[in-house]
Amino acid sequence: MQPIIIVHGGAGDIPESRINGKLEGVKEAVRVGYKILSSGGSALDSVEAAVVSMENDEYFNAGYGSVLNVRGEVEMEASIMCGKNLDVGAVTLIRDFKHPISIAHKVLTDSPHSLLGGEGAKIFALDKGFETVPPESLISENAKHALESSKNEFGRTEIGIKGDVGTVGAVAIDSNGHIAVATSTGGMSGKAVGRIGDTPQIGSGTYADDQVGGVSTTGHGESILKCCVAHSIIKYMGGGKDASTATTLAIQEMTKRLNNTAGAITLSKSGDVGVYFSSNRMAWAYVKNNKIYYGIDHDQTLVTDLNEK
Amino acid sequence: MQPIIIVHGGAGDIPESRINGKLEGVKEAVRVGYKILSSGGSALDSVEAAVVSMENDEYFNAGYGSVLNVRGEVEMEASIMCGKNLDVGAVTLIRDFKHPISIAHKVLTDSPHSLLGGEGAKIFALDKGFETVPPESLISENAKHALESSKNEFGRTEIGIKGDVGTVGAVAIDSNGHIAVATSTGGMSGKAVGRIGDTPQIGSGTYADDQVGGVSTTGHGESILKCCVAHSIIKYMGGGKDASTATTLAIQEMTKRLNNTAGAITLSKSGDVGVYFSSNRMAWAYVKNNKIYYGIDHDQTLVTDLNEK
Repeated sequence: MQPIIIVHGGAGDIPESRINGKLEGVKEAVRVGYKILSSGGSALDSVEAAVVSMENDEYFNAGYGSVLNVRGEVEMEASIMCGKNLDVGAVTLIRDFKHPISIAHKVLTDSPHSLLGGEGAKIFALDKGFETVPPESLISENAKHALESSKNEFGRTEIGIKGDVGTVGAVAIDSNGHIAVATSTGGMSGKAVGRIGDTPQIGSGTYADDQVGGVSTTGHGESILKCCVAHSIIKYMGGGKDASTATTLAIQEMTKRLNNTAGAITLSKSGDVGVYFSSNRMAWAYVKNNKIYYGIDHDQTLVTDLNEK
Repeated sequence: MQPIIIVHGGAGDIPESRINGKLEGVKEAVRVGYKILSSGGSALDSVEAAVVSMENDEYFNAGYGSVLNVRGEVEMEASIMCGKNLDVGAVTLIRDFKHPISIAHKVLTDSPHSLLGGEGAKIFALDKGFETVPPESLISENAKHALESSKNEFGRTEIGIKGDVGTVGAVAIDSNGHIAVATSTGGMSGKAVGRIGDTPQIGSGTYADDQVGGVSTTGHGESILKCCVAHSIIKYMGGGKDASTATTLAIQEMTKRLNNTAGAITLSKSGDVGVYFSSNRMAWAYVKNNKIYYGIDHDQTLVTDLNEK
């Protein structure tokens, strides 16, 4: 089957000044992920690589550039799921590793467990050969500014601190028809120490099932997890809705019930694409037929050649 | 409306020697929870109290008597959800508090977040006036024996270490028709440090929605979270299935797909009861019309008066 990859770079009140950086970042991420798919690689390796690309990029709230908790520290989380057998790897409360998604992938392949947190995740990562980095090396100037703003705004909106949104995610189908999904985040600016959001929770931030499709979500984590948004989209598709309708319905229901915003990217098992966000903006991109389709505003679809930079 | 409470005391290979203790424990838990409901208390307070009763009881794998991780330590987790507004409180990687479910309830009422883990959960709990206990005071003799056995058996079955299963949970509807669900566990004997299971993950261990019903699950955590079992049951009920059929279908699907066992207790918004387990045994009890219905083996329903001890 024709492989496909779609990514998002986070939903929220993205300021004008960050639009270009995010669009370049999501295009780069799908290029990296598609290269693996087009050379016969697995969906799992493809989504990991796409997310690693965004974890490296300070324009996204994941890995380097993650937002800071109330104590000014980075605490990251990530999850990855394999649609073939529903295998899951996830980590949370990660402070001093560069690529949480790669540790999550290793949990998927090497641990009898699905989700490891804090000290235990660190023990596992060190045992598997991952190297720590100084926590402060993950902190960007933008994240420091965002924390300062969040100290004024947190509690009033709980989300949408300008410039600091941007959970990242990727959904891919490889040439064997296997689906994988990866999601990674620094969470919410000014969050409490130890706050765990929707990203590592399967069915909220991430879901993949070869029999149905794959979903990665972004937005107000506490609302996403209360509605199990990723699993809701999967259930809509399982009941016969196409990817776009399923994605739109689940996000709209969450926003209507809980008055907070989110977004999601979806692939059905046959390769239909779903992109929807109730937030003001969400950066997204996908590759199909050697073209990159991408956008960040509502009702916006831009197109460029896969190989054009 | 007529209030109802149902509890479970964990699914798995429960040995004969533990049956009586578990049955007495689930009966006591529904008495405690029903007392609150019948005097006009809320479903949230009722499920918390029922779970606290089982957290105190060494016959259950939650609070005192929790199973031990590979390092011989207790690491507990719990979640509680309010069906009226989908509010969630959950904690994980708790080592030195007696009642994780009470901290989870406080997260629900007092935190802008839904799930707190490890150090952050401890900071929150201390700030809210919860007192620590020495970690070793939570360790029962039975848990030590279970760890010894798990060292031989872990990796082969990943579950069903005799005598140490027993996540606990409660689902209640109060006289105002509001639904709440609480689940609490010590996890899996011999688990890795930092392992987080299905219990604090909303849609896996716990789900409550006044518009549909409530579910608490127990069993092989990694399988439950891969299938979002609680949310799957809710979706079946939302689609028109009764509580019993919905519960049976979701557990059977999980067991068929992942070859591991689990159980769940369910109430529909109209008060229909669902109890199903693919494990060998699951202790459960519910109160309806001043009678306690309870059991632990397949196709077993015992009855006693509410006030008979």
